[in-house]
Amino acid sequence: MSANTTNNTSAVLSLRWENGNLYILDQTRLPIEIVEIRLDSIEQVWEAIQQLRVRGAPAIGVAAAYGLVVGMKPLIHLDLDKFLVRLKENAGYLNSSRPTAVNLSWALRRMQDFATVQSPQVISASQLYARLVDEAVRIHQEDRAICRAIGENGLPLIRDGMGVLTHCNAGALATSELGTATAPLYLAHERGMRFRVYSDETRPLLQGARLTTWELQRAGLDVTLICDNMAAFVMSQGLVDLCIVGCDRVAANGDAANKIGTLGVAIIAQHYNIPFYVACPSSTVDLQTATGREIVIEERAADEVLFFGARRTGPEGAKVCNPSFDVTPHELIAGFITDRGIIQPPYAESLAQHFG
Amino acid sequence: MSANTTNNTSAVLSLRWENGNLYILDQTRLPIEIVEIRLDSIEQVWEAIQQLRVRGAPAIGVAAAYGLVVGMKPLIHLDLDKFLVRLKENAGYLNSSRPTAVNLSWALRRMQDFATVQSPQVISASQLYARLVDEAVRIHQEDRAICRAIGENGLPLIRDGMGVLTHCNAGALATSELGTATAPLYLAHERGMRFRVYSDETRPLLQGARLTTWELQRAGLDVTLICDNMAAFVMSQGLVDLCIVGCDRVAANGDAANKIGTLGVAIIAQHYNIPFYVACPSSTVDLQTATGREIVIEERAADEVLFFGARRTGPEGAKVCNPSFDVTPHELIAGFITDRGIIQPPYAESLAQHFG
Repeated sequence: MSANTTNNTSAVLSLRWENGNLYILDQTRLPIEIVEIRLDSIEQVWEAIQQLRVRGAPAIGVAAAYGLVVGMKPLIHLDLDKFLVRLKENAGYLNSSRPTAVNLSWALRRMQDFATVQSPQVISASQLYARLVDEAVRIHQEDRAICRAIGENGLPLIRDGMGVLTHCNAGALATSELGTATAPLYLAHERGMRFRVYSDETRPLLQGARLTTWELQRAGLDVTLICDNMAAFVMSQGLVDLCIVGCDRVAANGDAANKIGTLGVAIIAQHYNIPFYVACPSSTVDLQTATGREIVIEERAADEVLFFGARRTGPEGAKVCNPSFDVTPHELIAGFITDRGIIQPPYAESLAQHFG
Repeated sequence: MSANTTNNTSAVLSLRWENGNLYILDQTRLPIEIVEIRLDSIEQVWEAIQQLRVRGAPAIGVAAAYGLVVGMKPLIHLDLDKFLVRLKENAGYLNSSRPTAVNLSWALRRMQDFATVQSPQVISASQLYARLVDEAVRIHQEDRAICRAIGENGLPLIRDGMGVLTHCNAGALATSELGTATAPLYLAHERGMRFRVYSDETRPLLQGARLTTWELQRAGLDVTLICDNMAAFVMSQGLVDLCIVGCDRVAANGDAANKIGTLGVAIIAQHYNIPFYVACPSSTVDLQTATGREIVIEERAADEVLFFGARRTGPEGAKVCNPSFDVTPHELIAGFITDRGIIQPPYAESLAQHFG
């Protein structure tokens, strides 16, 4: 691993592939230190995903595809058969870094399927390796294109002088570039529009404070950090004209699961007649899940709420509720900003039509 | 100052007066350490109020009254005239510990007015000192009686098996005993009722996590700590049947200023048809303020949001919004639980009738 700081360009890059090497921005050190690390072995990639140095479903998928390539590089002198066996082993190993991350297993499955299709057409492991690199780059480029399409489709919602509130980090750091919820904001900023962004800090893990506020500020956007419980206040003051959040899963009826706290933002936005949009790639729409009621909410460790870093904030032995997600019912959602356009109600029909 | 830990009885005591000495529970060390300190000089009382070792408007008022007594004790051998001059000086000094705390100046003014009325009837500073002690004890007892009356009046709202959500600390720690928002909960618990309490952690200063959760847990109530952004989730799951919060000021039309985040709780409660009550002593009702719009919201330091203890959580130079209060409009409030009964809408009439 080698470390160097990143440049001060527009939207930050969560990862990049350069001269056959994988670099990631270490998100565990943000916003205190800005350090890019080169991952030279599959073990380092595993550790980086497991430790959330790279995070966000799309970014994890891309990192895993490149990570598999990193792991296969020392093996290109093997026989093709042995190379394929090791490819499967390495994919299984990387997939164990965060077992519940859908994009992780999706990207690794795609790389393996690609290898299976390509292997009869190549004469060496080295040649197959080169094609795997190309496939990882394609996965990366596709993710970039999806974010850009979300940004272009959401751009008409942004108007000069408005205030936009977002929650958690559905930003560039969670994807290859531009983010999902932040993509329309980055594009509007690039085009010289002036608007304010309010970033909820997003307890308990503070992705909004540590990541969203940092990446928007760094790109020159006018961003104000607030505690989650201040969203109602800023909306009551007429400072917010639009909410855009990311999404982990959209059910067939339009109910949307996202980071804990999203539901409260949606309810408060409705109270003040502020349109509430959900930005997401097509892959997030899950027509197999009929409604939000079927989405199982992961309960995380109590200590995330009881401690802050090493410092105790809640009393010893306290009961804690720590759901990682909540489900926003479709009737609170003005539209889904996707790479296939803005999807509007009635969602049962519009989602099936665009993603069926 | 001497230190010893408190007993494990029912509602905790934020302060007590025993054998002519003032003891306070040091709230800055909660929930990690439970330490009661004796304040032996007026300088120590000043420091304890200024550093928030004792906090909460009612508790500050009581501490200030006793603190003035502590400061006058070494001066009882002075001439009565000189004693009165020093009383005024000491009151001015104590009042500078937290200049915006209304109860602080109220209690110190009451003690001085009392001294002015009593001084023609006494023959020595020593005799006046004894009467000042009695007046401080009366202020303390009145606060206890007010909290108990709030508790008795709110008690019919509590039902077996219900879930009650509260925000920040309007608890025993903020008053002489029982608290305001928590008073009905303590009384219901004393009477053997079984119910769940959800305590919002209350960013940025975490009074809900550090104080409310701690004091309710210690008294044996079933309390669950949640991050502020989880209130909508627990309400959406049908776990909350009632919200009770405290209050800093009630305007003549029933708009109520309280700790930041209260407004969001009220809006979300309305969305789920959950009654939202505000508990407060009569002294909080300010008929001179017509509506919530006239209440000036104090903006506090950005570093409260950007740091957690010594640890940075928001990026350097980030813009921050950090209002300490928000105003909940009267139409979201089901009633005010006061020492004079539960006040119900229409508030313009009912508040004037009870507090005019």
